[in-house]
Amino acid sequence: MKIKATLLTIGDEILIGQIVDTNSAFIAKQLNTIGIEVEEIISVQDEMNHIVEAFQRGISKSNIVIVTGGLGPTKDDKTKAALCQFLNCELVQEPKVLENIIQLFQTRGYAKELNSLNQDQGLIPEKSTFIQNKYGTAPCLWTTVNDKIIINLPGVPFEMKGLIRDEIIPRLQNQFQSETIVHRDILVSGIPESDLALLVEEWENNLPEFIHLAYLPNRTSIDLRFSAFGTNKEFLQNEIQYQINKFKLIAGEFLISENSGSAQQVLGDILREKRLTISTAESCTGGNIASLITSVSGSSAYYFGTIVSYDTSVKVNLLNVSQSDIDEFTVVSEQVAKQMAKGVRNQLKTDISISTTGVAGPNKGEDGKEVGTVWISITNGNITLNKKYFYPYLDREDFTKIVSNNALNLAIQFVREEC
Amino acid sequence: MKIKATLLTIGDEILIGQIVDTNSAFIAKQLNTIGIEVEEIISVQDEMNHIVEAFQRGISKSNIVIVTGGLGPTKDDKTKAALCQFLNCELVQEPKVLENIIQLFQTRGYAKELNSLNQDQGLIPEKSTFIQNKYGTAPCLWTTVNDKIIINLPGVPFEMKGLIRDEIIPRLQNQFQSETIVHRDILVSGIPESDLALLVEEWENNLPEFIHLAYLPNRTSIDLRFSAFGTNKEFLQNEIQYQINKFKLIAGEFLISENSGSAQQVLGDILREKRLTISTAESCTGGNIASLITSVSGSSAYYFGTIVSYDTSVKVNLLNVSQSDIDEFTVVSEQVAKQMAKGVRNQLKTDISISTTGVAGPNKGEDGKEVGTVWISITNGNITLNKKYFYPYLDREDFTKIVSNNALNLAIQFVREEC
Repeated sequence: MKIKATLLTIGDEILIGQIVDTNSAFIAKQLNTIGIEVEEIISVQDEMNHIVEAFQRGISKSNIVIVTGGLGPTKDDKTKAALCQFLNCELVQEPKVLENIIQLFQTRGYAKELNSLNQDQGLIPEKSTFIQNKYGTAPCLWTTVNDKIIINLPGVPFEMKGLIRDEIIPRLQNQFQSETIVHRDILVSGIPESDLALLVEEWENNLPEFIHLAYLPNRTSIDLRFSAFGTNKEFLQNEIQYQINKFKLIAGEFLISENSGSAQQVLGDILREKRLTISTAESCTGGNIASLITSVSGSSAYYFGTIVSYDTSVKVNLLNVSQSDIDEFTVVSEQVAKQMAKGVRNQLKTDISISTTGVAGPNKGEDGKEVGTVWISITNGNITLNKKYFYPYLDREDFTKIVSNNALNLAIQFVREEC
Repeated sequence: MKIKATLLTIGDEILIGQIVDTNSAFIAKQLNTIGIEVEEIISVQDEMNHIVEAFQRGISKSNIVIVTGGLGPTKDDKTKAALCQFLNCELVQEPKVLENIIQLFQTRGYAKELNSLNQDQGLIPEKSTFIQNKYGTAPCLWTTVNDKIIINLPGVPFEMKGLIRDEIIPRLQNQFQSETIVHRDILVSGIPESDLALLVEEWENNLPEFIHLAYLPNRTSIDLRFSAFGTNKEFLQNEIQYQINKFKLIAGEFLISENSGSAQQVLGDILREKRLTISTAESCTGGNIASLITSVSGSSAYYFGTIVSYDTSVKVNLLNVSQSDIDEFTVVSEQVAKQMAKGVRNQLKTDISISTTGVAGPNKGEDGKEVGTVWISITNGNITLNKKYFYPYLDREDFTKIVSNNALNLAIQFVREEC
């Protein structure tokens, strides 16, 4: 039986664009690991009627509704009242929740009397049960509505994540004998999306019904995602592999990776395999490449560090870039990118190094270079690969993201072919 | 008249948690600047029935439905077909869209014949008009349904952003005489959320009806957000300031900032004002602090760069941390944090420097230090501030985020008080 979930996020901060809803992606991923499919994600304001209506919608469509947010002690937190209205019941005091709050305050060194708003945090709908939240003051609520479940979690990411991992996933897994979902991505490059789709059309049309294919185009490559639904995980994994083997016979020349994780993961895997170390010298990407590489657990085995040379003096003093080359070619040039890569490799004593230098905008660089110009350089001491890109339309955030991703992909290619 | 919008995101990748929906936050923010309120955000799968039903829901609740995703050339893109079904009309060929595609391919150096899938990208619902997309092959669709509007945009962030900014916002502003929305955040610290709410209870109860207050608690502080709705922007801004002045009389001692932007923005503003420069030496935050600081446009005026010393050799060789102190106290210690801050300040020649060293996990550090321990150090050459934190429950991503944010907040405090 396919078990379906609706995710419901409550909070004005999402609807005015102040924060990005990262909770839903986390929960969706966790549910997928136990075969539960997310059918819809809804975000609504802190408004009673909107919340009640969203409960109604979720419960009518899905087996499980997971709700985050609106459980705090202040006036703008309305989720518990909305849940009572939806369930047609009252709030009742739950002493164990209060004990938890007192204990949390003691750990945090407050040791204060509970005020009336803290007391209210001990109230839960009488039709709900609670799960203790060791990460914060708002309890998790678990409510059965006929054969369906509403789960309320605090919106604070680290509290939500802890509860999902420790409590919710094990309980759901226990309660539902769900189907299995297997996802796998492969990475394709060097062919436009539409040409690829035509090339593999017959193969795609003949995919078994339980395998769903999606095209996720990036700027320089395409992720092909296989999703398979069934009861036997191993069978599904094998079926996907079988289809990938057939795909390779048709379009193998465009296949970059049979396991497209993020670029930083793929790069990490190759570096580990080849026992190589790497360092970075970043200008326009401002530390974002370092941030991506170190987001991979265990990266300290191959990543030594970065020098972000945002100021020109750092390029000259720390990376040994020639001042006269900067004067002649500007900081955004092949010459400077090369010397940055060489400089950081020498300073940090690694096998390989990557450098970036460019103008992220919104204003022109100090040398009048056009916004969007960037040079990436990669070296292993013997061979150096230099590449120029031009992204005039991107805002600062996207520019940094895309350049960082290009640098990592270029490094993958370089390590594969030259090291 | 209040104009309301529903945002609809289409794509399995969001519902399986593969990507985080950042488009909605961007669009919501842009709509808010012209007084349009986002009432609901929905994400649905690439399934005809789901998409058609979501169109129906959006149009029944809001004046405007903005849809992203599902406009690509491949089989998994179903938005145009769903729109036709919802509008009860056919697809017709629009030659100008094809011309745009041909031109784009030429710019990208493909210069290829349009294949049948590209041809299909020139099809638009006969009840829709189109807006040329100079950033990509999928056109933007604009459909009037009675007195309401459905707008379809590509899901690729930089294409969507360009179209929203260049085309959609100006057109909506032209068409709707909307109310104005003013948001302002202030930052409060040193008091639990519930105590603050009780302290300012009377003031909060007496806020005018057009001002809405929200509490957004972080780990070490609380953002208080004022949202005001009306017709006269200046009046609303003044009213919020008037209320903040009243708030200061009651809870002024806890007020950290009257304009809480992000910590990196606030730090940048103070550094500029005091004409100071800053550098960072990062270990456990892996370049994330650099990334945050450089995300602020114009940061090159005060930020010189970072040395990410992920490997111990970099701490010793580049930051001049004493090897014997590392042996005696481990890399996660007050001594090492201090020397890292001192080292990077000397190397990069800045007025102030920040350092971080800690164990992000999931595995214990090389020295057996507990996961979650972190030292932050800030120095201006004369005075050094060192602080220890312990976050045992956080995953790698949250740990990095929270430590980076603490470091920036500590730097704000340091620069305010000591420089």
